[in-house]
Amino acid sequence: ELFVLTYGALVAQLCKDYEKDEDVNSCLDKMGYGIGIRLIEDFLARSAVKKCRSYSETADVIAQVAFKMYLGVTPSVSCSSAAGNEFSLILDKNPLVDFVEELPAGRASLCYCNLLCGVIRGALEMIHLAAEVTFLQDKLKGDAVTEIGIVFLKKAED
Amino acid sequence: ELFVLTYGALVAQLCKDYEKDEDVNSCLDKMGYGIGIRLIEDFLARSAVKKCRSYSETADVIAQVAFKMYLGVTPSVSCSSAAGNEFSLILDKNPLVDFVEELPAGRASLCYCNLLCGVIRGALEMIHLAAEVTFLQDKLKGDAVTEIGIVFLKKAED
Repeated sequence: ELFVLTYGALVAQLCKDYEKDEDVNSCLDKMGYGIGIRLIEDFLARSAVKKCRSYSETADVIAQVAFKMYLGVTPSVSCSSAAGNEFSLILDKNPLVDFVEELPAGRASLCYCNLLCGVIRGALEMIHLAAEVTFLQDKLKGDAVTEIGIVFLKKAED
Repeated sequence: ELFVLTYGALVAQLCKDYEKDEDVNSCLDKMGYGIGIRLIEDFLARSAVKKCRSYSETADVIAQVAFKMYLGVTPSVSCSSAAGNEFSLILDKNPLVDFVEELPAGRASLCYCNLLCGVIRGALEMIHLAAEVTFLQDKLKGDAVTEIGIVFLKKAED
């Protein structure tokens, strides 16, 4: 709907502005970061979620509460490291690409939804959790699912 | 929330790209137009609205159904011409500027929400109604309310 199409217009504008896919990706990530550090307040207020006690709980809240609230979908979560600090959010359906059939021509390395990674990173940072957030798989690139990887960088302090 | 902040990022990017407010406004309008011509299908499918018989009915549907559906607010509508082809949508609350306190520095002529005008124009065009859509008042510019003007350009055919 309106948000999804507006997001598409934003990505199209950045593709006009930047020749390299990497620059578009990094710009989307930065914009997302700026959004995440503001969105977290809205999220905490509306969700009434309490402090998470583990990375695993945090990942579950992102998937089950935050994605549901803002995008209307619930990714499945899996832990992908023995250390328990790496998680995958698997999206069967990605509403942000509802109107997108394929990546724009000549944009094979574009992470179309990279804004989301920045949003998650920014929001986590505001609750004192440093994390790397990247797309590991993307249906738009021909992968079977869309997968966002979250690597928590420090031990939680709780 | 996420949409509002993403829209803010889009406007900020355009302000980076274009020096003149007029160019940003026109770019937002064009983007909106592109969105409107696609959004109308979603709107007709989800709203199950029937064909409007008058400009007045059309303006009411835009305010009461479309604005409600996509922005969660319902502007009041008033007819502002004896000919019955000019309408004002008055927004007491504009969710798109929830996180915006004032226009960016040096951007006094920016129509921050100009995308909306383009969306309405594009959507109307797809149902064979030519219209001019512009901001007449804007709270961000110090006006008491935000007012979107719609001027239908041809007589409706039925």
